[in-house]
Amino acid sequence: MSARVRVALLGCGVVGGEVVRLLHEQAEDLHARIGAPLELAGIAVRRPGRTRGSIDPTLFTTDALGLVKHDDIDIVVEVVGGIEPARTWLVEALHAGKSVVTANKALLAEDGAALHDAAAEGNADLYYEASVAGAIPLLRPLRESLHGDRITRVTGIVNGTTNFILSSMDSSGASFHDALEEATALGYAEADPSADVEGFDAAAKAAILASLAFHTRVRASNVYREGITEVTAGDVASAKAMGCTIKLLCIASCVDGAVSVRVHPAMIPRSHPLASVGDAFNAVFVEAQAAGQLMFYGRGAGGSPTASAVVGDIVAVARNRLAGVRAATESNYADLRIQPMGEVVTRYHVSLDVADRAGVLASVAGVFAKHDVSIQTVRQEGRGDDATLVVVTHTATDAALAATVNDLRALDIVREVASVMRVEGE
Amino acid sequence: MSARVRVALLGCGVVGGEVVRLLHEQAEDLHARIGAPLELAGIAVRRPGRTRGSIDPTLFTTDALGLVKHDDIDIVVEVVGGIEPARTWLVEALHAGKSVVTANKALLAEDGAALHDAAAEGNADLYYEASVAGAIPLLRPLRESLHGDRITRVTGIVNGTTNFILSSMDSSGASFHDALEEATALGYAEADPSADVEGFDAAAKAAILASLAFHTRVRASNVYREGITEVTAGDVASAKAMGCTIKLLCIASCVDGAVSVRVHPAMIPRSHPLASVGDAFNAVFVEAQAAGQLMFYGRGAGGSPTASAVVGDIVAVARNRLAGVRAATESNYADLRIQPMGEVVTRYHVSLDVADRAGVLASVAGVFAKHDVSIQTVRQEGRGDDATLVVVTHTATDAALAATVNDLRALDIVREVASVMRVEGE
Repeated sequence: MSARVRVALLGCGVVGGEVVRLLHEQAEDLHARIGAPLELAGIAVRRPGRTRGSIDPTLFTTDALGLVKHDDIDIVVEVVGGIEPARTWLVEALHAGKSVVTANKALLAEDGAALHDAAAEGNADLYYEASVAGAIPLLRPLRESLHGDRITRVTGIVNGTTNFILSSMDSSGASFHDALEEATALGYAEADPSADVEGFDAAAKAAILASLAFHTRVRASNVYREGITEVTAGDVASAKAMGCTIKLLCIASCVDGAVSVRVHPAMIPRSHPLASVGDAFNAVFVEAQAAGQLMFYGRGAGGSPTASAVVGDIVAVARNRLAGVRAATESNYADLRIQPMGEVVTRYHVSLDVADRAGVLASVAGVFAKHDVSIQTVRQEGRGDDATLVVVTHTATDAALAATVNDLRALDIVREVASVMRVEGE
Repeated sequence: MSARVRVALLGCGVVGGEVVRLLHEQAEDLHARIGAPLELAGIAVRRPGRTRGSIDPTLFTTDALGLVKHDDIDIVVEVVGGIEPARTWLVEALHAGKSVVTANKALLAEDGAALHDAAAEGNADLYYEASVAGAIPLLRPLRESLHGDRITRVTGIVNGTTNFILSSMDSSGASFHDALEEATALGYAEADPSADVEGFDAAAKAAILASLAFHTRVRASNVYREGITEVTAGDVASAKAMGCTIKLLCIASCVDGAVSVRVHPAMIPRSHPLASVGDAFNAVFVEAQAAGQLMFYGRGAGGSPTASAVVGDIVAVARNRLAGVRAATESNYADLRIQPMGEVVTRYHVSLDVADRAGVLASVAGVFAKHDVSIQTVRQEGRGDDATLVVVTHTATDAALAATVNDLRALDIVREVASVMRVEGE
């Protein structure tokens, strides 16, 4: 191996452009930290003719697969995203013994096993710090710092777009629709926001976090997922009345040898450290048996923060190559069962539009009791035919709550089950 | 090397006892994560006769140096603290090629060079995650995750005792003396609290953080240090009036190739993420050019959180030994100048007891102007001979502010410079 470390970059959009800039601007420092110079040897793009700032145009190629397999390349950095062709490129690279750094959460959550297996076969590194929570150093601490401990639960705000929308609904009382429009206008939401607002992005990250936290393999399809499109201004006001705020949470927990992983909006108390995470920031709250409560906070997206994480990984794999070692970045010995959502235990906030007649509370309470769902508080708002009953439960299984809601819908005096939201963080 | 990894423990107090418990309780998981079983081979203590729960009494020895040098030992874990004899033991261990895991912030800050040099000579690992901010994974992210970026500033609450005292003064209006008494009664402060309240503990941690953040060597003696014993209930009330709270901060920054590292109480806005870090929690706020703002939060002390960090390091060095590699955990290529405190630039809150006479404000303002210290706001409280002037400055050097305060003391109309406090985080 030459004294240089040669890097191939796949993709040169917002993140890729920032990676090129950092490699260039910090070249001297990176050389000192690695012990050898990094050399950007090629950049695969779809449209090589496009002008991309001051980047040397001879670096561009459309032949990603050729670049990846080239003898001269030591490290392949992928910032294209999506399942294919990224998977083919990275599996080829790893089989050929090249180290891989990727920010591709969708691919890792969908078929991380293919990448980890290829890395093991090729005796190559696979690093992916940038795939979850952007610049926040999170995967390395989970993977390494806490491996003397037992993580019991990971609760995260891992999608900046939805956090911006919910924070805006919380501070202004806006509707989901208006807050989404504001986020789009400010560039926080994409033209098609469904990956964010339907929770797909958060679910992919949840799968990666759960896999690392619990030493098992969790795929995106194992993650229970609800987005924030049904969250109303009324829900936000109701949360406020309880001293709570609504966040889109990813929650991964391990109980009795089973892992549950879910993404859904939830009410959390304003005193919880995650409650004050505003704007498009991300934060991940980790509970471990010995370490207690930890939180990691920072920018979860954006070209520059994501590039910071990518270049940090490049330095790590470059050092590994020079030392002639490989770091296993997956640990799946635990091989745990995925707990179905119906078994998951949490608390619920249920809002019912009811007719304010004699016996309404007794009827409603009877339905909860029938399914063994214990009520913590009931509050009635309004009188006559426009009354609202707000019920907050003690912990119950999701299945018991779902059955309760079904039976409530069948009651004559319940005009509508206006909202059902989980209550977390207490 | 045998398929077992043999560990010697130096010290068996609160942290050591928890390390033994974790090694025992998590033995199976640790085996799976390392790929080989960990074996606790000996524990050096001063009084081996003392009963220590269910620990096998044959493990105890008073001969720490003999244990450290024993052929059979792979990893030496030191949780004794203090400079000597810990330094001698660890240097011997490293020279003999044993990996070292230590929580000893005082030794690292006083003479980290001796340990790092010994580690390099012995081709051995030196890990010390537990030395700063207990269970919070902080050193590894600084050392590895962010090494593709340029850290500009680290601001931390790294001493739980003083944070408990200041949080209590903030919430109850108590005096320093009463808050310290409460902390002592609750076990948050030691019988002799000077290492905490005078800022020595925080200064040692600041030196370690600054060294890692800026790739240079900073010793405890390079750190400017003020404790919290002079913080009054009046300062706390004054901070509140400004929308601030008072925290004991460690601040390390790098400007124009020089590093400044300081520990002192400071006012920070309540909107700053560090402001809501209450009780005995720790948090470290990191600013980096590409990553932006990051924060790490958790328990900074206590047997169980500290042991979590120690055992995390044990797993890492055990893996390294099995892979036959060594990780350099120091990077000092930058070799930066230490900026004297007088050159450090920040903002100041100055409270003066004055006689409310014609021209008092003009005289006071004249002194600030003479030293080029620009005033942001002035507020007068009270009238007549009991008036107080509260001045908040724009940024100025510490030397200019010190000269200003000296001249203010010489003014007839200034009865006393009641307090001078730095304002950070804006």
